[in-house]
Amino acid sequence: MQFSKSNFSEWFTDVLSEAGIMDIRYPVKGMPVYMPWGFAILRKIFSYLEGQLEDAGHEQALFPLLLTDNLLAKESHMLEGFSPEVFWVDAEDDGRKLAIRPTSETIMYTMYSLWVQSYKDLPLRIHQTVTCYRQETKATRPLIRGREFYWNEAHTVHATREDAEKQIAAGVDIYSKVYNMLGISFLPFVRPEFDKFPGAEYSIAFDTLLPDGKSLQIATVHYLGTNFSKPYAILYKNEKNERVPAYQTCYGISMRALAAVVAVHGDDSGLVLPSKSAPIQIIIIPFTKSPEIGEIEFKLKSFGYRCRVDDSGRRAGDKFYHWEAKGVPMRIEVGERELKGNSVKIAMRNGEKQVVKISELDKIGSLFEKYDKSLGEAHADFIEKNTYSAGSLSEIKKGGFVKFGWCGDDECAGKVKEQGVEIRGEIYGKKPVKLKCIACGKDGKEVYAVHPY
Amino acid sequence: MQFSKSNFSEWFTDVLSEAGIMDIRYPVKGMPVYMPWGFAILRKIFSYLEGQLEDAGHEQALFPLLLTDNLLAKESHMLEGFSPEVFWVDAEDDGRKLAIRPTSETIMYTMYSLWVQSYKDLPLRIHQTVTCYRQETKATRPLIRGREFYWNEAHTVHATREDAEKQIAAGVDIYSKVYNMLGISFLPFVRPEFDKFPGAEYSIAFDTLLPDGKSLQIATVHYLGTNFSKPYAILYKNEKNERVPAYQTCYGISMRALAAVVAVHGDDSGLVLPSKSAPIQIIIIPFTKSPEIGEIEFKLKSFGYRCRVDDSGRRAGDKFYHWEAKGVPMRIEVGERELKGNSVKIAMRNGEKQVVKISELDKIGSLFEKYDKSLGEAHADFIEKNTYSAGSLSEIKKGGFVKFGWCGDDECAGKVKEQGVEIRGEIYGKKPVKLKCIACGKDGKEVYAVHPY
Repeated sequence: MQFSKSNFSEWFTDVLSEAGIMDIRYPVKGMPVYMPWGFAILRKIFSYLEGQLEDAGHEQALFPLLLTDNLLAKESHMLEGFSPEVFWVDAEDDGRKLAIRPTSETIMYTMYSLWVQSYKDLPLRIHQTVTCYRQETKATRPLIRGREFYWNEAHTVHATREDAEKQIAAGVDIYSKVYNMLGISFLPFVRPEFDKFPGAEYSIAFDTLLPDGKSLQIATVHYLGTNFSKPYAILYKNEKNERVPAYQTCYGISMRALAAVVAVHGDDSGLVLPSKSAPIQIIIIPFTKSPEIGEIEFKLKSFGYRCRVDDSGRRAGDKFYHWEAKGVPMRIEVGERELKGNSVKIAMRNGEKQVVKISELDKIGSLFEKYDKSLGEAHADFIEKNTYSAGSLSEIKKGGFVKFGWCGDDECAGKVKEQGVEIRGEIYGKKPVKLKCIACGKDGKEVYAVHPY
Repeated sequence: MQFSKSNFSEWFTDVLSEAGIMDIRYPVKGMPVYMPWGFAILRKIFSYLEGQLEDAGHEQALFPLLLTDNLLAKESHMLEGFSPEVFWVDAEDDGRKLAIRPTSETIMYTMYSLWVQSYKDLPLRIHQTVTCYRQETKATRPLIRGREFYWNEAHTVHATREDAEKQIAAGVDIYSKVYNMLGISFLPFVRPEFDKFPGAEYSIAFDTLLPDGKSLQIATVHYLGTNFSKPYAILYKNEKNERVPAYQTCYGISMRALAAVVAVHGDDSGLVLPSKSAPIQIIIIPFTKSPEIGEIEFKLKSFGYRCRVDDSGRRAGDKFYHWEAKGVPMRIEVGERELKGNSVKIAMRNGEKQVVKISELDKIGSLFEKYDKSLGEAHADFIEKNTYSAGSLSEIKKGGFVKFGWCGDDECAGKVKEQGVEIRGEIYGKKPVKLKCIACGKDGKEVYAVHPY
């Protein structure tokens, strides 16, 4: 089966199904099934993320799915922001209504209030990988917007604002590493006031571009200040023995990381997986029955590669198509001619081919590096080509990143929105660039806008 | 802090808290929080299990949390068995009531009906690790009976009864390996009719004994026959091109595996972890600041051990207590005297001590083997000592495994129950032993009874 990426929306749905990523036929709206291949890729991505979080001092825990209504009500922005979307449960606990977590602040911070007593308990850095639930009113799309979403959320507590803001930078750094590993380029924005997380002092969000020119928000990092620690009583005794509210951050990254991998790297033959995210990195297609096939497999596994021999009865062409559709980065063909030459044929999923001596298979690491690099560069190029400046409202097109000046007024943001794009904020960590507002001409700063999913 | 295991119930709760396994203070009944150390042990156990399942041809997937009422209603035993305990959600999907999964048969088999078309699609073996939800009416206990439970469930589909029953044996074998790795002994029973899984043809369950003599069901394996494949239309075209119902099995293992590890191996100093389940296998306590400490750590890690140096400012005694309470299998003490002798002091968590040359640290594998073996043997001994035969109802005591004859009648089972124990069935895979019924004296077979949690 061939897929035509020129019709991106149809291509995306077809590839999810044909590559064994998701099955959207489960009869509850916005809740598709993760098929084995899709779930394996998802776990490769999240295992890498979890490892990065652990290395940076986070510990993994697991908090309950259900919360009581009064927990949600403690922070008024949370209640306002999430109430319309929460799934309520037809059961009570000690007279309190129960809800399914839309996100875990209220659940985790209830415990943090018990765990944080002294400055010695800080910093506290906990993360969990769970599914969350929201009654989305927008149209759902597999891996992009569901009523069930898979994500990792990290929640940290600090003694000072400075420490907490250092953690914000650390969170941005961890997520950058994940997307760097996946060859996905993005821009990190400080969201405008009207678009920040309910209860946050400020929010940073990563936006990437999909092939249709629409943007996808693929990670968020929030500075909460003391907005939650006050209502949830996350207080620590400082060195003067006073109980004072702690400073908090939280950040999350969802199955949209997988959506981005599928959408950005895939082609008309199906998925194209960055090597570290591939459940199988090397597929060996034997054209002969020599015991050397097993030896090659053993050798590759001993080098640490995830490797499999396809010794099914299918025709070679069918095998090629099958593993290409699944995005396996490297195919090794072994026939009698190759074995006579003590070599194998290697075809990378991006089309690079070569013959390699069996004795030099320990050097294929460089092939993976080159392959991963080329995927990353292609997307970086794509984003660069689709980023432009607009000097007036009429120069704004739907699609890509457009930059211009904005004075910060909601009214002017509304005029931008009439052009079909939304202001996503200034670049995080970049010195503000002074620019006149594209709508009113008053003093403003450079911001970016996109046509979001 | 010391714990007294002589009061087992209090000891269990205290150890869960002090070792950082669970925090039971979360304000929703039956939904404690998995703390980092507890979650790390849980994941070590489940990663081992998942690996065994993969090796035996299972693939991991992830199915949604919510189901519609009509899915549950398709199999009448499921509806009857689970309806009273299901959490219903205050939302509808296309006019259907939504429920939170109490277990995933109805969800997975809805998809299996789409995935299974031909005999070529069989066998199908899928598993997932998720949390499930039931409104328990019995008293909840952390890790033993909760309204949220963490488990792995495997669901397989086969073309023939023979294949499916071979899979039953494979399931029993996989779970046996898990408990063997954990040093937990158990008896596998074929449950009596009145105690089988709703919709199963027969159910096998593993029962173990906790230190208080009560039994804990720690795994179940069910043969479903065509009881589900008929209502859920899991049909395959056989070689004669007829669409016929497939044969199914399902099996599950929960966080009770962790409960058993805590309860069975722990002592008055806290947890005692089998080496493969320990997030940290070796804790190094330095009494000096030599660079050799780092070299020893590096060496141990290169051998594949999970190892950490405790270079905190705490007193050595506090460090000992801390890591003992957490159950770390091996402590390595390194002081100047040891380094002068090119050696280290090793203390296993079960009390075994010795001095080992640094050059011989590659041989500590045998210490772990001996340690794991001793944990396993101690529990096997405990079960042997607490298994006895009863010749009459009055000889039945509460506690331990008691065996006797039973004719199979519910009325006679009721008389046994009046003694405070419940019949758990015949041993799976053992030739039935003829014995007169302990209650009515008629012909019967040997069964076991326990006082269950």
